[in-house]
Order: sequence, then structure tokens, then C-alpha cells
Amino acid sequence: MKVIIVGATGTIGSAIMQSIGNRHEVVPVSFSKSTIKVDIADKSSISKMFETIGNVDALISATGLAKFGPLATLSDADFALGLQSKLMGQVNLVRLGMNHINDNGSFTLTSGILSRRPMEGSVAISLVNSALEGFGRAAALEMPRGIRINMVSPNWVVDTLKAFNMDPSIGTAADVVAQAYVRALEGTMTGEVIEAV
Amino acid sequence: MKVIIVGATGTIGSAIMQSIGNRHEVVPVSFSKSTIKVDIADKSSISKMFETIGNVDALISATGLAKFGPLATLSDADFALGLQSKLMGQVNLVRLGMNHINDNGSFTLTSGILSRRPMEGSVAISLVNSALEGFGRAAALEMPRGIRINMVSPNWVVDTLKAFNMDPSIGTAADVVAQAYVRALEGTMTGEVIEAV
Repeated sequence: MKVIIVGATGTIGSAIMQSIGNRHEVVPVSFSKSTIKVDIADKSSISKMFETIGNVDALISATGLAKFGPLATLSDADFALGLQSKLMGQVNLVRLGMNHINDNGSFTLTSGILSRRPMEGSVAISLVNSALEGFGRAAALEMPRGIRINMVSPNWVVDTLKAFNMDPSIGTAADVVAQAYVRALEGTMTGEVIEAV
Repeated sequence: MKVIIVGATGTIGSAIMQSIGNRHEVVPVSFSKSTIKVDIADKSSISKMFETIGNVDALISATGLAKFGPLATLSDADFALGLQSKLMGQVNLVRLGMNHINDNGSFTLTSGILSRRPMEGSVAISLVNSALEGFGRAAALEMPRGIRINMVSPNWVVDTLKAFNMDPSIGTAADVVAQAYVRALEGTMTGEVIEAV
């Protein structure tokens, strides 16, 4: 399969690249570090990406920004970041991508464990992650031509926890998280939230 | 308790009014039909509402717009409506209301069955309803002074189904849905999604 990976240079995206690069034709895309770049918060950038790449069998998104911080101090802009980037950015990958995915292809988006297991400071991220899961469950009912859509909800990744000086023992290795994306890509499910824990 | 009901003149709001009006001091608020008005999509309107009413023990929100329609034809504005009105409108009732709810008071927001049980055409609404549930689960962890927050997820209401010429037999009576709000108001739970089916 020809597969776009958006966020290909991130912690999870890199692990997905390693997991499927040897048996699929992968097109890596990222905000700044790949040959083909995309700003998912900008619809025209997404359109340009599809024009550059052409039609594919699948798109995997492992990207999107949202703000971590206490509810009492989050600003309107902090909430807007998550809505415009991680949420509508991924929604727009689907809206604009529907005409560029081959028959029986698939979308795989990324939500995250904070949708179901919040923590103090996660309110804007929990909102966005849950929204993506609700979107995907519903969008699966309207995908044309056998196209599937699923959401991977990753646990905290070990490398991310280390970067934030948090206890890495509660995390999941990036290559284990990547297997959830492989199952979504190569499986037959649609409208599902696949917990990668 | 002194309780603000936002959306007091709607189908569900009216039923909540009838359920609790005889034993709590209810302050009805709506977009256009109540003495005190609020446009929840406008933060300054929410601030003005709290200035007018002063502090209360609880706020129940049974309001918010989101667009029903096929994914392939929903516009950016259609998605924005749900994000600005039903989603961030209710989120902002909490953000601005946190300083106006008395100790051990509560917020009760409204999501809806389409979060977990989508249908064709529900994608923008499913997104918003799920987002509200994720927000509420997380916000419960950060509420000060014993304040609780819960989300009621109503089934389709019989009267709404009749209005849309849909089969009313799959619906729930408004007074039954209202009981979920009563449980959230008078109970001790927080961070919960209460399905009113």
C-alpha cells in the first residue's frame, strides 16, 4: 500500500515508519523536517499536500498540537490551539482526503489516553482527544468506497515521559504503540478507538 | 439551592424547570425568551449573565447549537458552529462560572447520545458531544471548593423526534430525561456522563 504518514518525524510517527516501511510504500510528511511538509491547521496546506502526493491507499496521522495546563489558567488561545491543530487539523485531513484515498483504503487518526483517563492539567487535551473519537465513530458511517477510519489512542510514550521528567514506568514503548497503527492500517475494523497501552 | 438553568425554555430545559422548580430557587436563562438572556457563544454575554444573577449553587446547561448534516457537505462554518456554541459555549459557562458557584455547588452540562451512538449525518454533533464528555471528565479533577461537574447525555427526546418527523418510539420522554439532571444536581457524583435513556 502507498501510505502517507503525517507527523512522520515525531516520536510515534518515527516508530510507525520503522514498523511499516519495509512492506509498504511510505510517504513521510511533517511540519518542518520532511521533504513534503504540511501545516494541518491550514486547509490550503493540506490541499497542497494531496496535490503533491496524489492518491494513496491510506493516511496515518500522528500529529497535532494541544495545550497542557490548568483549567484556571488556560486562555481562549490555548483552547483554540487544540481545536484548530490536533482536532480540526485531523478532521480536515479526512474531509480533504476523502477524495484522495483509493477504494477500500483507510484513515488512522490519533487521539490519546487522556480522553478516557484525564489528569490535572489535561482538560484542553482531553476535550480534543474525546472529540476525535466521537468524530471518527460517526465519520466511519459515511466513508465512501469501502474506506475505513479508526482512531488510535496511545498511552503516554516512554520517550515522552522521559522528555517531561515524568516517571517512564507508566509509559508504553513507541514501537508497541506503533503496532496499534499497523493493526488499524492492515486490519478490517472501522469506527474503532484502538487503545495502544 | 439557587440554580441557573441555561436553555430554560427549550424542550429539555422546560422539563428540568418543572422537575425542580418546586424545591429549588430556579433562575431561568435563555437566548431570547427569558427575562435574563445569554448568548453562550459570546463570552461577554456569559460574564454579563453572572454579573446580573450573582453567585449561585448550581448551573445547569441544556443548550447549544451544532449542525446535523452529511460529512461530505458540512462546511467549515458548520463545524465552527458546534465548536463555538454547544462546545466552547458550555466550556465557557464553566470557565467563567467557576468564580460564581458557591462551595460544594455543581455544573451540569449537556452532551448527547450521538457521542457514543452516531448516525449518518451526526459527525459534527458527535464530535462536539464527545468533546464535552472529555472536557467534563478532566475538569472534574480541577474544580475548586468541592464543586462538581457532570454531563448528561440525553437520548433523543420524543418531542424532538416528532418535530423532525422521525419515529418517536425510539425516544425518551422529556420528563424522564430531566430526571438525569436532577440526579446530577442533587447527587454527589462528579466527572460522570449520565446517560438519560
